[in-house]
Formats: sequence, C-alpha cells, structure tokens
Amino acid sequence: MAEVLPQGAVIGILGGGQLGRMLSVAASRLGYRCHVYDPGAAPPAGHVAEQLTTAAWDDSGALDRFARSVDVVTYEFENVPAAALDVIEAIVPVRPGRAALETSQDRLTEKTFLSKLGLGTAPFQLIDDIAGLVGACEDFGLPAFLKTRRFGYDGKGQARLTAPDQAVEAWGSVAGAPCILEGAIDFSAEVSVIAARGLAGETAAFDPGLNTHVDGILRTTLVPAPLSPEQADDARRIAGAILDALDYVGVIGVELFVTPEGLLVNEFAPRVHNSGHWTQNACVVDQFEAHIRAITGMPLGDLVRYADVEMTNLIGNDVADVPRLATSPGVAVHLYGKAEARPGRKMGHVNRVIRRP
Amino acid sequence: MAEVLPQGAVIGILGGGQLGRMLSVAASRLGYRCHVYDPGAAPPAGHVAEQLTTAAWDDSGALDRFARSVDVVTYEFENVPAAALDVIEAIVPVRPGRAALETSQDRLTEKTFLSKLGLGTAPFQLIDDIAGLVGACEDFGLPAFLKTRRFGYDGKGQARLTAPDQAVEAWGSVAGAPCILEGAIDFSAEVSVIAARGLAGETAAFDPGLNTHVDGILRTTLVPAPLSPEQADDARRIAGAILDALDYVGVIGVELFVTPEGLLVNEFAPRVHNSGHWTQNACVVDQFEAHIRAITGMPLGDLVRYADVEMTNLIGNDVADVPRLATSPGVAVHLYGKAEARPGRKMGHVNRVIRRP
Repeated sequence: MAEVLPQGAVIGILGGGQLGRMLSVAASRLGYRCHVYDPGAAPPAGHVAEQLTTAAWDDSGALDRFARSVDVVTYEFENVPAAALDVIEAIVPVRPGRAALETSQDRLTEKTFLSKLGLGTAPFQLIDDIAGLVGACEDFGLPAFLKTRRFGYDGKGQARLTAPDQAVEAWGSVAGAPCILEGAIDFSAEVSVIAARGLAGETAAFDPGLNTHVDGILRTTLVPAPLSPEQADDARRIAGAILDALDYVGVIGVELFVTPEGLLVNEFAPRVHNSGHWTQNACVVDQFEAHIRAITGMPLGDLVRYADVEMTNLIGNDVADVPRLATSPGVAVHLYGKAEARPGRKMGHVNRVIRRP
Repeated sequence: MAEVLPQGAVIGILGGGQLGRMLSVAASRLGYRCHVYDPGAAPPAGHVAEQLTTAAWDDSGALDRFARSVDVVTYEFENVPAAALDVIEAIVPVRPGRAALETSQDRLTEKTFLSKLGLGTAPFQLIDDIAGLVGACEDFGLPAFLKTRRFGYDGKGQARLTAPDQAVEAWGSVAGAPCILEGAIDFSAEVSVIAARGLAGETAAFDPGLNTHVDGILRTTLVPAPLSPEQADDARRIAGAILDALDYVGVIGVELFVTPEGLLVNEFAPRVHNSGHWTQNACVVDQFEAHIRAITGMPLGDLVRYADVEMTNLIGNDVADVPRLATSPGVAVHLYGKAEARPGRKMGHVNRVIRRP
C-alpha cells in the first residue's frame, strides 16, 4: 500500500501558469498546501499558492531550498531542465518521474517509445540537416510536417511542407534545430484522453473529448467525443499502455488521431492538459484533483462524467466576451488572472454544461 | 450599470476559516486576487490567498493597511466588530453592507426586522434578567429556547426549557448575557435557501436544501429538499424579500422551518453558508462564486442545479473516513487543511452527486 501524504503536506509545483494555478486550487480541496517555483514575475499560480519562489531554472540554491520545503514535486510543463530535476530529485520525489519527462521532451524519443509499445503513430524520420530533409521529402512523400524534436507547443516549432522546394524555407524556419519529419495523416478528428495512474499502479481515464484547433491552438473540447464504444475503449487502452510503460504517477494527456485504420497517437503531455479542463464542471474529481490524488498517494476517485460539456478556450481578446458568457445558461467561467490579453495568450476558458434531457 | 472590478483586482476577506478559503478559491476562478485578514495563526484561507494579514480585530493600523490594499471587502462571519468596520468602510466598500451585519448580529434585531417584513418567525420575547425569564416562562408557554442575542453559532449560546424550574439553570448557562426567549415550533423539517443579490439589485436563488443536524451542528443537506413547488417558491420569495429590504450585495443563507402554517424564518446568515456547500458539485456557479460575482459587480450567473446532491459535513474524527469516501462513486471530497481534528470542529465536507437516471 502506497503511503498517503497527510493533510497539510506541501506540494511543490514547477511552473506557475494556469495549470499550476488550477493544480494548486485542487490541492487545497484535499487539504494540501502548495509551493510554486517559477522564474517569471507574478505568475498566475502565485495568487493561490501558500508559497512562491521566483528564481531561475539554473539557480541550484533556490531549487535546493524549494525541494527541502516540500513533500513531493510535480510540474505543469514538460520542458523542465534536466539539471533542475537532478537537484530536486536528490531531495524529494518528482512525480510523474524522469522517464515520462524525458520521453515526452523529445519527439523522436516519444515516437520511438510509442512504436515500441505497438501503438500507431504517424510515419516519422529523424532529420539532422538540410540534405536529410531534402532526401526525406522524396522518400517519405508529401505533405509532411517538419517538427523540432524539442520545445514545440501550440503549433510552434512546426512547418508544413507540400512540395520539395519548400525544404530550405522550412529548415530555416526551425533555425536548424534537430527535427523529425512526420508524415501527414488522413484523420477525421482529433480526440484526446486524459488518464491517471496512482502511486500503487492503478489506472483510470476520463471520457475522451473531441478537439478543434484554430491557428494551431486548442479552441474547443466537446465531451463525449463522437466515438464508437470500441474506439473510446481503445483510447483508454492506449493511455493505459503508455502510463504502465512509463511507471507513471499522475495525470497524462494523450492526443489521438481518428483514422480509417484506427487511433494513432499524435503526442502525449506528462501533465494535466488543456483538453481536460472540461472535467472541472462535469466530474466529481477533475483532472487537477486526479493528478494531486495520484502524486500524494490518494485513491484516484470517481472520474465518471455526469454531464455533457463543451470547453472553449478564451484566447487573447476573447476575454472581452466574459460579461456575456458569465450570464449564459450552463456556462462556468474560469479565468487565469493574467493582466494583459496578448494575441494567442490563453486568458481563461469556459465550460458549457449541457444538461441531460 | 454597476461597475465591475477588473481582473487582477484584490478582494479583502475578513476571517480566514473554511468559508474564506473557499471564497478565495472562487475569486481565483474569476481572475481576482485575495487578501485575508484573520487574528489566528495559520488560518485555512491563508493557504490559497495571495496575501494574509495576521492581526487583531482592534488593530486599527493593520485594518487601515488592509483596507488600502484591497478593492472591496467582504467577510466570512457575521460577528465582525463594528469598530473594525468603521475603519475599513472609511476607505473601501464593505459588501454585504452594514445593515445586513447589524441585523443578523442580534437575534432581537433580526426577528424584529423579519416581523416588520411580514415574514413568519417563532414567537419571541426580549429577556433582560432572570425575573423576565421566569415571567416569560409563564406567559409564553414551554418548551421554549433561551438564546443569547449575540455570538451564537452551531447551537452554542442556547438552552432549552421544558419546565419553569429550569429558568435559573438556563439563565446561568448563558452567563446573564442579553437574550431572547423563543417559542418552540412544531416543524416537520428545516430547509435552507441560499440566495444572492447583485450590485445592480438583481436577485437569484439556488434550490432549497433539506438540513439535518447532530448536536446542534449541521450534518447533512439534501437537494432537492422534499418541498412542493409552492413551498420552494415561497422559500425563494422570502430570501428575496430579505435581500431587497437590506439593499444587500452578496450571498445570504436563510434557514426556514417547514410548518403546517407555512415556512417560518429561523435565522439568516449574511454570508455563504454551510448548507450551500452542495452547490460546488451541482451548479456551474457555486455559492462562493455567486458571492464573489455579486460583490465585484459581475452578473450572478447561472445558479440552476444540474444534479441531485447530498452534502455531509466531516466533523472531528469523521475526517478519518476520507480514504473510504475518496473512493466512493459520485463523492467529491473537500478538506479545509486544518491540522488537528478536535471534536465538533468542521474539518471538511463531502458532496455526493446523485446522477440523474
């Protein structure tokens, strides 16, 4: 039996954005306190965490003090530098662990890992230089996507190629960073499944949701996704296989393409995920709480959905629509406390609960 | 049109217990920051508020600094000293306002106010001394309750009299504090209605819930309460009449007795209320968020219930049952981060969502 952190224990969260903020709120519901570590000034999670450390990722003294002040460490983003983890892991457990982070930080490692598990992905090939890219455009077939191996998010670090003569421009757009070329897939929909694995190895999953994107950024998630029962089961099975293979502890977000040949894994994020925000208003345990439960050794709880729901991100000036949304039937508003509504910046989201008939 | 506080504005909360804690979390959902003022060490709300002032209620310097650091002030308990309010109100608005606090702080004032509104209450009489009590026992009829005019909660400051010869003991139990004698009512159930009034004067109410008590402390609230549609409407109408008469801004909790002659008002609390905790898992806007919306000038939003639910308080050692509850279907656990589980202490609550068939 895994040991459960007692009430009042302190959870360290690396990263103080909106995910850290909502993790901190979920932790408070379970009687835990939070200490957020973020290099930026006034991060959103700092408003709701008991403690905030503002320091750089390479400040080993600050990392050491942070690690000594908490009982477990988790993170809201997958690009935590390895050296920072080295400092922290010497002192206190990091959950999810190193394997999950290292696998998801690099698209090549991630795709190789998924293939070895027997899970379908887009065809992919390592691209080290422009000659390799030009060659791959021939061998591989177009259209295809050139993606940086590391640090991509919200469509950044990607270029779409439809003709071989775009190779030079595409290579320039990623500034010569190590890449993979990924074959374009004929998919009818993107769905994602948010799943969790507890400290004792038990797994559970929320219902899959249907995602739509605008300009490479998630726009909406509709739940339930229009999947057959077999497809929904397959989505859960895929998430479970990834969780078990990584000896994972916490919540994972797995993005899947629906294709005529079955579900293919696009990518996974070793953390709570934007496409799981709908759980806040349709489940008794939401993705944030499921994550906190997992990393503290608590049972995962009941992840069953009890209402249909659609999540919509509020990006940039969308936030100006909040006064109207705040009076709309069934709409729950979630704002992140960010002062400035820059274009492309995630300012909040709304969950529209669609009551059962 | 009332002015809406912008995102990032700071809400001052007087009192840092579990109600202040859950208000702070709700404020964060709407992008607001919180500053909690509490005389006690390590209050639960301090874990989730951006700022915490630990100072006495008569520390006018601390109150002044607190008031200058926030955009609006609210409170989690009705016994805020008048002198503290004087300091704060000179600087920043307090919502709900003075009338609500002063009316609810004194049972005589409260009952007189309700009677003038034409709302039914138990018969009551002012008791200033033991002679008055002895006389009232004759005139009034027994059983009856001797209740202190001020500072009663969770059944404290009350004595039940069934025979005139208990008058001396009852008077001793309240230590000679100013009291009222309240006639016992033949009621079939206690229900409560949580209602809200916005800055522009609009009102809305959650569905009434059925309350059960153990040892004078709320134990469960079941929603919907077993009321006829007419009774439920009447409960909302009563709450609305109180809100309008007090020119109220925020959430109110109104306890009602169901009697053969209709609904009688037991008492009201000018704040979020324990019997409204169920709203966290059955409405898109819960009582805490409705309160924050009201005091910040936002629209109240959708208070319609979308699931049946039963709230159960975790009192004292009940909290030892959390591991089992945390795995129970439909159960959402809410803990307050209190270190020590003393008898009678509210440690948390659970909401069991009863899915619709």
